[in-house]
Amino acid sequence: MAHPRDTDLLDAPDDGVAMDETRGDVSSATDNFDEDNRFRPEFVRKVEDALEAGEDGEVHDLVEPLHPADIADLFELIDEDERPQLATAIAELMTAEVIAELNDHVRELLVEALSAGAAAQIAEQLDTDDAVAMLEDLDEVDQRAILAELDPEDRAPIETALSYPDESAGRLMSREFVAVPGHLTVGDLIDYLRDQRDISTDFYEVFVIDERMRPLGTCQLSWILRTPRTVKLEDVMKRDQTLIPVDLDQEEVGLRFQKYALISAAVIDNDGRLVGQITADDIAHVIAEEAGEDALLLSGAGEGDINEPIREAYSARVRWLIANLGTAVVASLIIAAFGAAIEKLVALAILMPIVASIGGNAGTQTMAVTVRAIATNQLTESNTQRILWREFRVAFLNGVTIAVLIGVAVALLFTPPLGGVIAAAMVINILIAGLAGVLVPVVFDRLDVDPAVASSVFVTMITDSMGFFAFLGLAVASGLVG
Amino acid sequence: MAHPRDTDLLDAPDDGVAMDETRGDVSSATDNFDEDNRFRPEFVRKVEDALEAGEDGEVHDLVEPLHPADIADLFELIDEDERPQLATAIAELMTAEVIAELNDHVRELLVEALSAGAAAQIAEQLDTDDAVAMLEDLDEVDQRAILAELDPEDRAPIETALSYPDESAGRLMSREFVAVPGHLTVGDLIDYLRDQRDISTDFYEVFVIDERMRPLGTCQLSWILRTPRTVKLEDVMKRDQTLIPVDLDQEEVGLRFQKYALISAAVIDNDGRLVGQITADDIAHVIAEEAGEDALLLSGAGEGDINEPIREAYSARVRWLIANLGTAVVASLIIAAFGAAIEKLVALAILMPIVASIGGNAGTQTMAVTVRAIATNQLTESNTQRILWREFRVAFLNGVTIAVLIGVAVALLFTPPLGGVIAAAMVINILIAGLAGVLVPVVFDRLDVDPAVASSVFVTMITDSMGFFAFLGLAVASGLVG
Repeated sequence: MAHPRDTDLLDAPDDGVAMDETRGDVSSATDNFDEDNRFRPEFVRKVEDALEAGEDGEVHDLVEPLHPADIADLFELIDEDERPQLATAIAELMTAEVIAELNDHVRELLVEALSAGAAAQIAEQLDTDDAVAMLEDLDEVDQRAILAELDPEDRAPIETALSYPDESAGRLMSREFVAVPGHLTVGDLIDYLRDQRDISTDFYEVFVIDERMRPLGTCQLSWILRTPRTVKLEDVMKRDQTLIPVDLDQEEVGLRFQKYALISAAVIDNDGRLVGQITADDIAHVIAEEAGEDALLLSGAGEGDINEPIREAYSARVRWLIANLGTAVVASLIIAAFGAAIEKLVALAILMPIVASIGGNAGTQTMAVTVRAIATNQLTESNTQRILWREFRVAFLNGVTIAVLIGVAVALLFTPPLGGVIAAAMVINILIAGLAGVLVPVVFDRLDVDPAVASSVFVTMITDSMGFFAFLGLAVASGLVG
Repeated sequence: MAHPRDTDLLDAPDDGVAMDETRGDVSSATDNFDEDNRFRPEFVRKVEDALEAGEDGEVHDLVEPLHPADIADLFELIDEDERPQLATAIAELMTAEVIAELNDHVRELLVEALSAGAAAQIAEQLDTDDAVAMLEDLDEVDQRAILAELDPEDRAPIETALSYPDESAGRLMSREFVAVPGHLTVGDLIDYLRDQRDISTDFYEVFVIDERMRPLGTCQLSWILRTPRTVKLEDVMKRDQTLIPVDLDQEEVGLRFQKYALISAAVIDNDGRLVGQITADDIAHVIAEEAGEDALLLSGAGEGDINEPIREAYSARVRWLIANLGTAVVASLIIAAFGAAIEKLVALAILMPIVASIGGNAGTQTMAVTVRAIATNQLTESNTQRILWREFRVAFLNGVTIAVLIGVAVALLFTPPLGGVIAAAMVINILIAGLAGVLVPVVFDRLDVDPAVASSVFVTMITDSMGFFAFLGLAVASGLVG
């Protein structure tokens, strides 16, 4: 099947004959990108130089061949001060797609630099979901000013979308979709679609609805294309469908798209009526954002976007550091209680951070696993006990391994009794770390607090305090000190 | 537009009138799920009880109404020992979809419990990409045994797929797709598709290829449905398309789907010939996995799946703890160098963990932000310097805030000079943490080492050591101690 003919083109050739012949990289049309699809620094520099020289024509020529998503990326890579200038230089390339793809913070800055009228003109070009993304982070005064400049028919859907909770399906959904009654035939549908000139949104499924606009089933377009014209849609549609409530959190929406491998889904209001659709291409960045968020939240870095204004980054992070200052003080109080022992045996001061530090790491490992499992709905009430037992066994193995290593080293370098004390303290602290790493996030989840946000401070406090307490306490209790 | 008619159904009603009337939750067809779409523990217990009682009929009745993806989830929630029994009880419900949706570790266990012949029978039902997922993690002996049982025509595509690198596009892609020459008309294509009875894969775009099987453009099905029968595909196709090289890493594939909002993409071999397609519904779990991985990798929890066998979890995590033991020992050596000072002023031992701990947290924050920005291609050579300067400023603000808080407290509780020393040490350590948090991941990225895997150990070592060194060193240098 080397030369495909008109019919007979399904299934790729399985021979793989051509795998060895290399004929250059066909993946990148231009040389402006490296192998990871990132802009080469030389290209970015060329754009920046042209901007500085005020040569808008050259800037335009450089940017014109780029994909809108790449133009949006370019804004992030150049200096903040140069961004409005770039937008001006390539004004006619600043399409709705570019605006929609811009990083939130970059877009906010650009929009704030515009007059309300100019911003409204851009918002009018955008799909509702993208216009909402453009407006939702602005302060209320700016938002109202822009909304006031919009035509009422453009404004209404944006205002409705903004009335849904932040990060809900209602904010994400597109209000354009194809919904038809089930008694239509495949032929009717195709004729109807050919007549429609004003469908601006891409769609991958047609929703079949009843006379009250409630979804009855979905038809993938590929089924419609493969079905004779006379067949009714209700005979080809899939009845078992995943409906997304309009106020569902976007994280949950992303999980359902993953779990059920959805290509698009109907969004319904509280009355069960179809009000919008979400498509897999629009949800991909939400899935990535929600999954990637955990690493940032666990570290207390807040939103953690490198384009976030410094003041916001400072305010998010310093709160966390202050909370950690509190937990560090608790640990210090425990050390202070053993001040006399440390004065007598300075080795205790030298070794005590080891116990606390390894315990902290062990706790963080378990916590990261638990938080991820909760976020992906893998850890529920049904298996919590089993996971706790599993983590206890892992912690025991880890604890014994580390205890042997440090115990022997301390026995040789200091004294055997001190080696025994640090080994015992290590096992205790790693076991406590394992339990805390599961229990703290699970308890927060039960209390409806995001475990990724809240767990770290508590787990660290527990492992730090217990690390010092177990080590210093055992040292005193064993009669090692005076 | 309360009662939709046959034609005139695009755009949802914008009135939002029905938003207040609530008529129960329409999103979950059954009561077996909570509001987060997780199985209720009572349901899981019912299944477990029936399994223990050996009532396979009841198990079957409970499981039958479930979606395949939910059946797959159920396996994760019940005890490991009960999983083969569940598989037996619901044998006829164990469809290809269920197998494909199973957690990798759970599937591996189930497959290992089967004979090679039985496993081959399942593999034959699966799409190539799912069969690959089923076989790729087995040890080589088991894998060969199952492959040997397959029909040659089923075996060949699986073996070809397995010959691509782990986690590459070639492993993920489906080898079924629709590719046609551009001179076909819309009508020709629809007639051709209606004739085909053996298309088993869903598709959302048709690829237009040249006579050497190289992609020329793509047509979304919605465009085809809306275009008159006489129009040629080459006149409706989009020429600007994102092609995925067959050996591209899946993380990069996910990023391109996100960035370019793809619904499907052509996979090409080194010769530029179309060999497969990847669709947005199949890539969603990859995007989530790759983005969520950072939190686990940064904490040294390895793969971090709660279904991972204990031995593997232990081996991944203990290596990390041993590495951290090394860094903790370095910090201890620094403390040991100041042993005499600590003996004279035990307050130093009490306070020193605070400086190290806050520095560690500040470093982790910056590192998490940097690692995420690198993973999402937001941080490149072009803006590294700018981000470094940004993080330096955030660190300065954080450092001064924390220094004032701890400095005043120590001045009041201990002595003003000690307050000054700890404040100065805190500023220094948080600044160092900020720089290390950017530079360490950036350097690893330049060296082609995954920054999420390697950065933590180094950043922690730097902030711990510098925390103790700055605090104890300043205390001695300022003449505070003897």
